[in-house]
This record gives sequence, structure tokens and C-alpha cells, in this order.
Amino acid sequence: MERAVVLVSGGLDSATALAVARRDGFECHALSVDYGQRHRFELKAAAAVAEHLGAAEHRVVSVDLRAIGGSALTDEIDVPESGLGEGIPVTYVPARNLTFLSIALGWGEVLRARDLYVGVNAVDYSGYPDCRPEFVGAFERIANIATKAGVEGDVFRVRAPLIDLTKAQIIRLGTDLGVDYALTHSCYNPAPDGGACGRCDSCRIRRAGFDEAGVPDPTRYAS
Amino acid sequence: MERAVVLVSGGLDSATALAVARRDGFECHALSVDYGQRHRFELKAAAAVAEHLGAAEHRVVSVDLRAIGGSALTDEIDVPESGLGEGIPVTYVPARNLTFLSIALGWGEVLRARDLYVGVNAVDYSGYPDCRPEFVGAFERIANIATKAGVEGDVFRVRAPLIDLTKAQIIRLGTDLGVDYALTHSCYNPAPDGGACGRCDSCRIRRAGFDEAGVPDPTRYAS
Repeated sequence: MERAVVLVSGGLDSATALAVARRDGFECHALSVDYGQRHRFELKAAAAVAEHLGAAEHRVVSVDLRAIGGSALTDEIDVPESGLGEGIPVTYVPARNLTFLSIALGWGEVLRARDLYVGVNAVDYSGYPDCRPEFVGAFERIANIATKAGVEGDVFRVRAPLIDLTKAQIIRLGTDLGVDYALTHSCYNPAPDGGACGRCDSCRIRRAGFDEAGVPDPTRYAS
Repeated sequence: MERAVVLVSGGLDSATALAVARRDGFECHALSVDYGQRHRFELKAAAAVAEHLGAAEHRVVSVDLRAIGGSALTDEIDVPESGLGEGIPVTYVPARNLTFLSIALGWGEVLRARDLYVGVNAVDYSGYPDCRPEFVGAFERIANIATKAGVEGDVFRVRAPLIDLTKAQIIRLGTDLGVDYALTHSCYNPAPDGGACGRCDSCRIRRAGFDEAGVPDPTRYAS
């Protein structure tokens, strides 16, 4: 059975990407990154998702992105609650997906996994530059330049199966593949008990996706 | 004064790259990565080098690459002492420079530094794929695709001023720029007191460089 490394954040998209990787026949090695995110519910959700979707293992690598700051998700900057505006929002974390994929690539090389799955998508999203197809393509190129395996012709593939799906399409796909979205966590600004705020960009996009998909929203919102 | 982020490992090459960045007129922000390397002398050397060469600050970001293993520098694999053989040696750390540059890029974006210096070179080196000009070029491209700054046209430049220099040329350049190489640490397999082994690839390349440059070697070798 071929191996794949799947980046699993604990959110809805990466859970769906993991379900797709399993459907594609891979032995899935789930990777989460503890990057000093302000709220820790994501990592608990990631572990639950990895187990639920039959990952062969789930590993957490720590990278202290708080040491560089610069984002509402790692620094003392308020998460916006008024909906998406113009441009890239303050929840953007500088070079986050590049750093995460780099670690996934390193682990993939060690595991002899040549397929890396990432749940980025560029339709119903926050406009982050590192969620676009151009980024995924550029990463696949550098993966095969930066590594021993790539240079030796044992080619890495970067798979972003959600890249051109709407949030509703992602939710329908995951539902068909048996994803229990109640296990996932999307909120940028959760209540102390983990309840979703319902107002941050991530909650808004998620809620609209369930509405449009016609799938009951299992999210536990803070009262 | 424009800012640059300079990756400083504590070794000879990155110390020279820092001296070049300062000569080029940048306010230098030195970045070291604590990646779980088996010996810790590197990080002490990096701090000493950053101070000696007038960096505006020195920051250490932790990334636990031990969690993925796969290298003699992070895992329980013996460091070779018989000289360079065929192919890429076991001291290769999967996706290391890609991960380090990704973090440097993130910090550069936060600092509004658009120049990233890295001391890689592809002449007297261990054959690591992530030290070659192709890699540096690919990283500059992805830096401008992956980031808010890059997408908004505030372009990042990746500077690898040593890329086509021999070790002897690097040592002469650094000596001209006032680098005190006694502060630097290259050995992969140091004695408990930090003395260099003189037998690993890194020691061999370093020692031959001083010989060829005609510069007295200040390295403290283990007796």
C-alpha cells in the first residue's frame, strides 16, 4: 500500500482531504503542526479526525511561529468579526502553508511517501495566497528540487483535491466519504469550552457551506 | 536602512553571508533554527556570530525535526568519518533548508525585510540538493507566490552570495570582511567540550578550505 502524508489541521477542509486520500487507496500518515496557534482546540480536533478516518498514525510537529508573530492567529491581534473585506485579512499567517508543506515533505521523504495531500481551496476562502493553485504547483516543483528523493527522480506529487471546489461541494464530498464534521473545528475565536463564535470569517464560510450543501450543520456554536 | 533576514547556523558559511549582508548595507536580523540538532554548540556559536557581526537582533525559532527523524544530524544514525563518498550523505536533513527559508520568509514578511540571505554553496559542499542554485531560484519564485507581500508586488529577493565560491574563497572573503572564524562551529560530531572531531565531512571541508586559503585555521580540534 502506497503511503501519503496528509496535513490535518483539525478543520473541515483537511478532514475532507484525508477522506479523499483514503478513498484514493493510500496508507495515510496524518501530520499536524503545533505552531503556537492561540487556541488549542484545533490540535485536539486533528487527533480525533485522524483516528476517525483511519490514519495509520498522527504526528504533531512543533514550530514556534509565535516567535515571528504577525498574525491574528499567533499574535495579540483581534480576529475580525464583521465579515470578509477587501484584501488578505489579518488572520493570514506569514508563510504558514509553505512551512507546513516543507515539514510534510521532509516527513514524506523519511517515510518514502511520495504523495502529499493538502486541503487548501481557493473558492470559498479568505484570500490567503498560499491556498491558490499557483502556490500548490510551485510547491510541487520545489519539492522535487529541494530533496534527495526528488533529485534522484523519485518524484513527489502535491495533491490538493479541494482546490477548485466550493465549500458546499467540499461538505457534500466529505459527507459522501463518511466524514463526521462534528469532530472538526474551524473557528478562529472559540469560547473557552471550544464552542464556535459564529462570527469570524472561518465560521461564516463554514456555516454558509452547510446551508448551501443542504447538509445539517453539526457545529456546536457558543451560546 | 533596509532590513534583511539572514539565516545564521553558527557555521562558517552563514557567518560569511551575514558579513556580506552587512557590507551590502542592510540592517541584519539574524535567524537560527533550533531543529533538535544532536549537538547544541551550533546555536551558541550562532548567537556569538550574530553579536560579533553587528546583527540588529538574533532570534531562535524552534522546529522539532526530530519528530520526523531520517538524518544523522537529528536521529540516532552515525556520522561518517571516512570522507565524502558517492551520492548524498546521511547527514542530509530532509527538507531542512526549505523549512528554514520558509520561516525566514515568514519573519521577513513580518519585519518588512524583503532580502533573505542564506549561506548555501554548491562547490566545496556535501552534495545536499537544497544548497544548489536551482533550489535558491525556486525558493525565490515560491516566496513571491506564497506570501501577501509577494502577491502585492513587494518582491522578495533570496541572496546566496557564496553559491559559486570555493571554501577557500569564502574564507578569504570573510577574513577581508572581519569575520572571526574562531567563533564558528562546523563539526557534525564534536567532543563534549565542543572541540571539532576533524574527521567528519564538515571538518574535512573546513580544514581544507583554510589550508587552501592560506589563512590560519582557528578551529579548536579535540585532542
